[in-house]
Amino acid sequence: MTAITLSTATSVVDAATAKAREIGQPMNIAVVDDGGHLVAFVRMDGAIKASIDISIRKARTSILMNAPTSALMPLVQPGAELYGLEQTSGGMVIFGGGIPLTVDGVVVGAIGVSAGSVDQDVSVAEAGLAALNS
Amino acid sequence: MTAITLSTATSVVDAATAKAREIGQPMNIAVVDDGGHLVAFVRMDGAIKASIDISIRKARTSILMNAPTSALMPLVQPGAELYGLEQTSGGMVIFGGGIPLTVDGVVVGAIGVSAGSVDQDVSVAEAGLAALNS
Amino acid sequence: MTAITLSTATSVVDAATAKAREIGQPMNIAVVDDGGHLVAFVRMDGAIKASIDISIRKARTSILMNAPTSALMPLVQPGAELYGLEQTSGGMVIFGGGIPLTVDGVVVGAIGVSAGSVDQDVSVAEAGLAALNS
Amino acid sequence: MTAITLSTATSVVDAATAKAREIGQPMNIAVVDDGGHLVAFVRMDGAIKASIDISIRKARTSILMNAPTSALMPLVQPGAELYGLEQTSGGMVIFGGGIPLTVDGVVVGAIGVSAGSVDQDVSVAEAGLAALNS
Repeated sequence: MTAITLSTATSVVDAATAKAREIGQPMNIAVVDDGGHLVAFVRMDGAIKASIDISIRKARTSILMNAPTSALMPLVQPGAELYGLEQTSGGMVIFGGGIPLTVDGVVVGAIGVSAGSVDQDVSVAEAGLAALNS
Repeated sequence: MTAITLSTATSVVDAATAKAREIGQPMNIAVVDDGGHLVAFVRMDGAIKASIDISIRKARTSILMNAPTSALMPLVQPGAELYGLEQTSGGMVIFGGGIPLTVDGVVVGAIGVSAGSVDQDVSVAEAGLAALNS
Repeated sequence: MTAITLSTATSVVDAATAKAREIGQPMNIAVVDDGGHLVAFVRMDGAIKASIDISIRKARTSILMNAPTSALMPLVQPGAELYGLEQTSGGMVIFGGGIPLTVDGVVVGAIGVSAGSVDQDVSVAEAGLAALNS
Repeated sequence: MTAITLSTATSVVDAATAKAREIGQPMNIAVVDDGGHLVAFVRMDGAIKASIDISIRKARTSILMNAPTSALMPLVQPGAELYGLEQTSGGMVIFGGGIPLTVDGVVVGAIGVSAGSVDQDVSVAEAGLAALNS
């Protein structure tokens, strides 16, 4: 398995959606493949429209950086090593909510979640990741 | 009802996916709301990556033009009235596969389908529309 | 093997470069991975600068469409089925010179060649492909 | 000599690649000519995809600013003289890893390196530069 299938992506999205319902925060949830190309997306009723783009970019950024987007935040602050990073590669998102999806240590895709607080976004993304390996 | 819900969008995507499976052509299928903003998307295994963007643009174009994208094709040919239309609004798609989703004559969203022949794309989009009114 | 390695990409570029020298036409030669991301690139002395972007886009277009770019030309003409296709996915190139790189039927990347006539571009790209399977 | 040849660019890339191997950090390495146009590029196996764009922009920024990118970092901080500079010219990169390539004081091109820490990027770029003048 190297690129995520739609079936697996759907399981990830469903688990993330269930978590979002549990915490009462409608979300935009995107899953991309290992090349950063969209596989599945849902916008829950009431989730803000800006987060459509943000969720997809978070997932794509996780692929491009091979890291969760939350790891980028300290690195891009004024005075920090990668200040300005977010303007490269057509625009990356550098706050939490994007996580690589790995199976046996191999990146098969990424999930991006947006519309709540960053903590909420991260917890929903992690619920999606958990479904991948359950 | 003015904007499509995720539940309804999912029914539309599922019906379109079933049709795509029936004709043996993996597809990219997008549903947008009445403002042209993405609500649901799936890329079936094996569907070409170029059609991610195309399917979403077809749905969005249907909202912007309030018409199926197939209706635009004759209008944008060299010498025709709207030659060059596809370069406006950030890029529209002017071949078939995008259809407004209407309930009782009111547009609630649109579906865009891409990855097969245009005839296949249109038939899968119509299967999605049919689910809305069943 | 699912994504092309730098070592393999270099072999492909070297074979293409040799062919370009043989026909006396300096070329821009790009190899991308199976997600359309650049792996290796060379601009031979005297090759036009416009073809830097064109060669990279040809390779990327081959990945996105899962086809040689030469196959797209008839489909995007005025009146043809996919008229306007080249404006999607951030800009695709729809003339010959881009070819998917396949090993045992699996796409591992793509090559894009530009700076000569289309026939020359295609023959240089094919020389690159031949190296992959030799 | 005013513009770097492919042969010289390849020597620079090879020296940089050797240094990257020595420090055990796979890198994206780009060489541009004195107009900022790409001449040669390699992505070593395992180097992150985000750095494709970053390495090329670092090289291009070095040409546009006629300076190493590391020199820009203090100038673009909030409150500093060139705050916002990175948003001009289509997007510049203002952290270290881009260095002009000079021969006898004349700029013939630039190298951009990305995927490691900034210190690693700079040391690999300097190894490329050293090859030019050896």
